[in-house]
Amino acid sequence: MASCLFCRIAARETPASIVFEDEVSLAFLDVRPLFPGHVLLIPKLHVETLPELPPELLAPVFANAQKLCRAVEEALGAAGTFVAVNNRVSQSVPHLHIHVVPRRHKDGLRGFFWPRSKYRDADDAEAVRVAIEDALFRLKPSRPA
Amino acid sequence: MASCLFCRIAARETPASIVFEDEVSLAFLDVRPLFPGHVLLIPKLHVETLPELPPELLAPVFANAQKLCRAVEEALGAAGTFVAVNNRVSQSVPHLHIHVVPRRHKDGLRGFFWPRSKYRDADDAEAVRVAIEDALFRLKPSRPA
Repeated sequence: MASCLFCRIAARETPASIVFEDEVSLAFLDVRPLFPGHVLLIPKLHVETLPELPPELLAPVFANAQKLCRAVEEALGAAGTFVAVNNRVSQSVPHLHIHVVPRRHKDGLRGFFWPRSKYRDADDAEAVRVAIEDALFRLKPSRPA
Repeated sequence: MASCLFCRIAARETPASIVFEDEVSLAFLDVRPLFPGHVLLIPKLHVETLPELPPELLAPVFANAQKLCRAVEEALGAAGTFVAVNNRVSQSVPHLHIHVVPRRHKDGLRGFFWPRSKYRDADDAEAVRVAIEDALFRLKPSRPA
């Protein structure tokens, strides 16, 4: 038995309410949904976070996320969707999972993107901008060529 | 001038703190960040929601999201990242944007994934599962072949 819960679900060793499966990914109901219809889409390959997903899986996995957005919205009669990935912090299972959650206006989730802060001033924002730009330049390829 | 704020930013008609640009996408600081270093990654192509992103843009755009996760984490000395897309509900600008937010343990954002609900019983969950599965089967291709 795999030690990872989501690998066990992918291997059908642990039951889950599976809504979708293809060669590279699997989607199932979150057992503790934000709202009913909240699904988790996982790559079958065990990777911990989004940056670790191999390049060749990006298009197929996110095409499935697109399909799930449409399906969840239609199935639940929702007005929109929330798609989210927690990398490490707030990540309950260390196997990449993309949350796809049906949303309605005034469903109570609005608050999560509030309160927001502000940059102190333009210099403060510029320092952060440059730090990110520098980090991008320094990035090593995620996999050796 | 484009009527869409993010199209104007992509066209350099409206200033923004840009951290990254390539042929297909652009990333800049959110002016009202959840935390400093919160960036928005947009496709230059004007599409409103994630399901509308053309298939050929999935890999390049999400590869850039991966890079931004690494860069934002390193630049801000963060422990992880939060990656999110609001489709229609809670979407402030109707041009697809992927939030990439640096996260720290106990940064106060934990609550947003709480409180969660539960399915009433196994039948309740199964009804939702089947509804999503059915919607997936009925999905028309997002673009005509």
